[in-house]
Amino acid sequence: MSVSRPAVHPVEAPPLTDAAENPPRVRMKDIQGMPGTPGGLALRLAQFVSAVTALGVMVAYTDFTSVTAFSYLVAAAVLQSLWSISLAFIDIYALLVKRSVRNPRALSLFTIGDGITSTLMFAAACASAGITVLIGNDLEACHRRQYCATFETATAMAFISWFAICPSFLLNFWSLASR
Amino acid sequence: MSVSRPAVHPVEAPPLTDAAENPPRVRMKDIQGMPGTPGGLALRLAQFVSAVTALGVMVAYTDFTSVTAFSYLVAAAVLQSLWSISLAFIDIYALLVKRSVRNPRALSLFTIGDGITSTLMFAAACASAGITVLIGNDLEACHRRQYCATFETATAMAFISWFAICPSFLLNFWSLASR
Repeated sequence: MSVSRPAVHPVEAPPLTDAAENPPRVRMKDIQGMPGTPGGLALRLAQFVSAVTALGVMVAYTDFTSVTAFSYLVAAAVLQSLWSISLAFIDIYALLVKRSVRNPRALSLFTIGDGITSTLMFAAACASAGITVLIGNDLEACHRRQYCATFETATAMAFISWFAICPSFLLNFWSLASR
Repeated sequence: MSVSRPAVHPVEAPPLTDAAENPPRVRMKDIQGMPGTPGGLALRLAQFVSAVTALGVMVAYTDFTSVTAFSYLVAAAVLQSLWSISLAFIDIYALLVKRSVRNPRALSLFTIGDGITSTLMFAAACASAGITVLIGNDLEACHRRQYCATFETATAMAFISWFAICPSFLLNFWSLASR
């Protein structure tokens, strides 16, 4: 008898509170690009590949430490690639076991991490771009230097990495705010 | 009799739909820094003052057009100051007539504008910082140049302007997402 009317039973109160806590997760639509979706995994891999490419291209120019902005680009690319590959593993795990990783605490962590790494990466890309343009256009020193292509490639890859992390950050922030 | 049970009346449906549309505006808390609050106005004025200072300091160095990044900083500072002063006037209007300017359409516009101007300003600040550090630390050319302080001041002001626009952008984006 009591099974047919669970709502009037005081012992059924905890599930009700739980249900009131759950709607956010149910309401959150599965937009591609969010953590735990194939789109999110693709974004993470794109970030990782472009950050590693920027890192590799810049490190191949052995004298990169002579310019502060290029050393900073290398540091930002290392941080970005470590962050992106970690999140990619979390996405793979979430996809394999079909579990949602979008609980508020994880989302806050992802959002803050994405915000920090994207800001650092964008700053590094802009500083490198400023110097590359200074050398190439303003000083017109590229005709006698072999390394301009290196700087340009590394800068472009850093920007691509930032373009890939932007949707991740905005989608995470959006899901966090619309909980 | 029908007044005591309005929910069963079909004519009562429109107010219900209206009520379902309204809660977002009611739920949106008046966090300082959002458009139409004194904090928001203070942020806009801080953005405006620092962008105009960056602009003035950079333009005072007459040869700024010889470096692409510095020309870009001037352009970004012009855009930023125009945007911030416009939004400051909107905030003043909202405060004077005590009207909320946080309808979804205005919030989208503010968020997109803040996002674009903050990205441009940050990019300009980072590019200028890269070049300033290159001249000052890497080439150690500051001892024989008088303009290093100019570049440093303009760059610092551009960063301050970006620091002031970040909360505006994040708060607008948050209110937009949590509607």
